[in-house]
Amino acid sequence: MRKVRAIVYGAGAMGQVITKFMVDKGVDIVGAIDINPDIVGRDLGEVVGLGYPLNVKIDDNADAVLSEQEADIAIVALFTEMEKMYPYLKKCIENGLNVITTSEEAFYPWTTSPILTSKLDKLAKKHGVTVTGSGYQDTFLVNLITLLTGTSHIIEFITGKEKYNINDYGSVVARHNHVGQTKEEFDKDTEEHGIEPSYFRMNLESLIADLGLTIKKLRQRTEPTIDDVDIECKSLDMIVKRGQVTGISNIIDVDTEQGITFRGEMIGKVYRESEVDINEWFIKGVPDTYLKNDRVAIRTTTCTQMVNRIPDVINSEPGYITVENLPKLKYRAFPLHYYLKK
Amino acid sequence: MRKVRAIVYGAGAMGQVITKFMVDKGVDIVGAIDINPDIVGRDLGEVVGLGYPLNVKIDDNADAVLSEQEADIAIVALFTEMEKMYPYLKKCIENGLNVITTSEEAFYPWTTSPILTSKLDKLAKKHGVTVTGSGYQDTFLVNLITLLTGTSHIIEFITGKEKYNINDYGSVVARHNHVGQTKEEFDKDTEEHGIEPSYFRMNLESLIADLGLTIKKLRQRTEPTIDDVDIECKSLDMIVKRGQVTGISNIIDVDTEQGITFRGEMIGKVYRESEVDINEWFIKGVPDTYLKNDRVAIRTTTCTQMVNRIPDVINSEPGYITVENLPKLKYRAFPLHYYLKK
Repeated sequence: MRKVRAIVYGAGAMGQVITKFMVDKGVDIVGAIDINPDIVGRDLGEVVGLGYPLNVKIDDNADAVLSEQEADIAIVALFTEMEKMYPYLKKCIENGLNVITTSEEAFYPWTTSPILTSKLDKLAKKHGVTVTGSGYQDTFLVNLITLLTGTSHIIEFITGKEKYNINDYGSVVARHNHVGQTKEEFDKDTEEHGIEPSYFRMNLESLIADLGLTIKKLRQRTEPTIDDVDIECKSLDMIVKRGQVTGISNIIDVDTEQGITFRGEMIGKVYRESEVDINEWFIKGVPDTYLKNDRVAIRTTTCTQMVNRIPDVINSEPGYITVENLPKLKYRAFPLHYYLKK
Repeated sequence: MRKVRAIVYGAGAMGQVITKFMVDKGVDIVGAIDINPDIVGRDLGEVVGLGYPLNVKIDDNADAVLSEQEADIAIVALFTEMEKMYPYLKKCIENGLNVITTSEEAFYPWTTSPILTSKLDKLAKKHGVTVTGSGYQDTFLVNLITLLTGTSHIIEFITGKEKYNINDYGSVVARHNHVGQTKEEFDKDTEEHGIEPSYFRMNLESLIADLGLTIKKLRQRTEPTIDDVDIECKSLDMIVKRGQVTGISNIIDVDTEQGITFRGEMIGKVYRESEVDINEWFIKGVPDTYLKNDRVAIRTTTCTQMVNRIPDVINSEPGYITVENLPKLKYRAFPLHYYLKK
């Protein structure tokens, strides 16, 4: 048995936590790629705060690292959209690497980016490797819910509600969520630039695919959240006045040919004092079913699931494999190479 | 494609609901066995209240039904303990039937009844059939938790707490839970007769097996629950006075060789007005994880999961197969035979 060998592609906040978790689970980190001049040339172990060097220099020459290092898998934490991710994923595949990525769209990109996904699927099959997207959503927005449906006799509809605090993230997320705009500015902004795609869509599509259902219609709308008190936005270092936009609520409605409907609501807002994160699911049917995940550590569980999924990705048949087609995710009590089949 | 053919072995309360659910999912019921004189000789469809006959007479001659009817699977809802279940399971296997049962011990009987289980495993392999226990616990006390562990980087301990109202059940459960005894009577009773085995043990053992861990030590204790007000026990048609036993709390502690510990607490008591069912899980580790299933329909979801599991049992390799080795359970949007692989 030899250890799993991984290349960290993107050594930002997520890539760094994932690195630490992989080291704990006996993974050999054999390469690291990033273009941030603050960390290029430094040892990855030092950058992530291990307290000892990993003898892996962070390199800004992706081609050199990917072609020179023999590895089983690349851990890609770069962008959200498939269009941006495509050249990076392609490069990994062509170098014979399995890939797992935090990219939100990559989680289930079959309908939002069908051409790119099919190309990657074909390429991955040719090179005998697997590409998968995972993260927080893997368990908390998809697989726990799929499993819960297994206790239903009849399902009429499924609704999921997710709420997070913008103050837990940086200024990019705050601006993306229109924080501090007036209602009029929000309306003008969304009319001019359209609404941002909700990544809850990928989660619902994965769930629907796993249940063998067919999508008939899909609608999305975005509403501003507005509070009746002033709230501090730490990410933008400002006070959001009462009546101003504190964030957005993104609602996806999906109808299926089989008559079961799905609604996913994702609220990202600056919290007032009493507010807490929400991850709640309701299945209306026989019987009615309620699930609550309290206090989910969203960013930590993105990193944990990326790492725990590594053996599934390496073990999988080749292709672009979305998580509903992987085995149920579970805790890795032993080093990751103990779970390899080949 | 032909329909799934099933024999209902035990047409009591559970067997009747399961029958209705199976009919809804396109299962052909080809036989029904029960010894209750009130229903023997009557049509199963009429007994379960379908409103039309199934043309299946409830028969008290198990051997005749099992040997004469060609079926894929027997749905066995009879007893809790493997010792009592053994001859019935054996009979089904010898007649070439796959089996799914509600028996609590059958859910994971490898350590509590190792000899009987190994015998059944061998016999099932010889006859090319599968035997599985399922029910409420399949998802709500085991598989949801296994899946949740997939979001953990480090696990120190896992605790599960389950509380149900004795008033939802009959007098047998109430007496079994010592309702109405004084503390002294409870102590004398448990000292003389020992404590009842907790079926939470099977659930924890299945979870532990699925995580690849090894049990080092297992302890069980039972405590009476005592309230400080008078509470009505509908099951026994009596008032339980303050200070008397309102039910029991069964606590299982399991240590593993890998250092992760597990605690399962099952409380069955007569509820005071404000009390509600509990199904709560906590994983202490990195990160801490909390799960709540509110208002779970325990008996309905026993029946739904028995039915939704049928294709998994038929598709499985032969042997005594506990659920941690079956695919993740999910909703059956289509008739059950759509999910058969062979």
